[in-house]
Amino acid sequence: MTGLVWLNGALLPAASAGIGVADRGFLLGDGLFETVCWRDGAVVRLDAHLARLARGATVLGLPLPPLATLAAALADTAVANDLKDGSLRLTVSAGPGARGLPRPAVPVPTLLVTAAPGGTPLPPARVVTATVTRRNEHSPLSRVKCLNYLDQILARNEATARGADDAVLLNTAGQVACATAATLFAMVDGALVTPPLPSGALPGTRRAAVLAALGGEERTLAPADLRRATEVFFTSSLMVRPVVALDGQVVGDGRPGAMAAAAVRLT
Amino acid sequence: MTGLVWLNGALLPAASAGIGVADRGFLLGDGLFETVCWRDGAVVRLDAHLARLARGATVLGLPLPPLATLAAALADTAVANDLKDGSLRLTVSAGPGARGLPRPAVPVPTLLVTAAPGGTPLPPARVVTATVTRRNEHSPLSRVKCLNYLDQILARNEATARGADDAVLLNTAGQVACATAATLFAMVDGALVTPPLPSGALPGTRRAAVLAALGGEERTLAPADLRRATEVFFTSSLMVRPVVALDGQVVGDGRPGAMAAAAVRLT
Repeated sequence: MTGLVWLNGALLPAASAGIGVADRGFLLGDGLFETVCWRDGAVVRLDAHLARLARGATVLGLPLPPLATLAAALADTAVANDLKDGSLRLTVSAGPGARGLPRPAVPVPTLLVTAAPGGTPLPPARVVTATVTRRNEHSPLSRVKCLNYLDQILARNEATARGADDAVLLNTAGQVACATAATLFAMVDGALVTPPLPSGALPGTRRAAVLAALGGEERTLAPADLRRATEVFFTSSLMVRPVVALDGQVVGDGRPGAMAAAAVRLT
Repeated sequence: MTGLVWLNGALLPAASAGIGVADRGFLLGDGLFETVCWRDGAVVRLDAHLARLARGATVLGLPLPPLATLAAALADTAVANDLKDGSLRLTVSAGPGARGLPRPAVPVPTLLVTAAPGGTPLPPARVVTATVTRRNEHSPLSRVKCLNYLDQILARNEATARGADDAVLLNTAGQVACATAATLFAMVDGALVTPPLPSGALPGTRRAAVLAALGGEERTLAPADLRRATEVFFTSSLMVRPVVALDGQVVGDGRPGAMAAAAVRLT
């Protein structure tokens, strides 16, 4: 995170900006976010991100300001921080509330935009299948980018503890769902495939772009399908990351594959 | 929430206390909490609450300050607010972090205690079985009082939309798990029963007290079991609430039952 953040309409030094202690985002994880890529003076796939945020707000029953306001906040934050290539995160919480689960009759969401400079590209990943938890495909939250990230944090921590870079999450039925903060793609039986949303996959913005441009298909995947994949890679709004080892087994020939390279070239 | 909050060791007016914009509690729901009952100048079942918090911190891999520090913070907040009977909430987030899922090598948790005066007792509840989501009994978080409360919020919102007071949550296998912010007890076939932890039940402090004192047993419950229950009630650290209607059907004779009354008398 760089120096200035946009909080409820004002650009402030990060160190002097504060979230209220009654904020339901902090107390209950009641909110949504989007992490977007900022490149060449614009948000990549802005409309797709804002559309997903709006769908999430509908699922949660949260009011949103006009999407143009949010788009301007993203751009203003990037410009204020003199961001070249990097990322922005827009967080929308349900705002302050009284004790307990019910929201105020008219919630006043907290809106926060933060910026971070682009990092160096991550090396190809060695991953494991998480055993600590499962993704809940029975919850509509599996299809919403919400503030409840503890299952993913537990899975990532497990990966780290096992000497891996990331984890594959299975859903409660034992099917492949996703990575901890990314979509999973694989080449299985000669086809580019990714788990469908009912498996617990988040409708990723780059996921949609890859599916459309590279002829991928949504297919329910068992762990055994993944074990015979000739290529595996993860995608998110910020990266495409080849997976070269899964649960100690080499994937394909152990080098980044052609489809991952093609996905990178999509933008 | 009343006027003074305890934040990282300092008592501050609520309006001037702020959570940092990089706090992982706000950004990712990375943290825990306890809501406790304050009565006659002390926290009810303090040791049970602190023990549960400590178990949760182990599951999440979060460091905690000495439990005596947290106990003192609870008492200091109650006294500073001149709280008579009421409630306190202790929130422990993973504290500030950089963008992404990994925590800092040495997390510095954010500690917050807030106070709220006691309300009037809630009337007996008319509840529905939530259809919008399921509780994920495959996640260790189902047994941890963590900051990820959106599934419960969705279920509560559904209950409100359907004209009910609260909702019963089923787990992903379709078994009864809990209410949105309470343990579920029922009299089924003449026995006092509550769902076991593997069904997705949170190990509630009052749950344990009721089980021990009233001879209840943990039993896997199907929705059909609940439909023939002669009594249903919810318990939390703050209340015992009889359930008099479930999915439009009267429970028992439609009046609060004897076991709920016995549970109230336990303290």
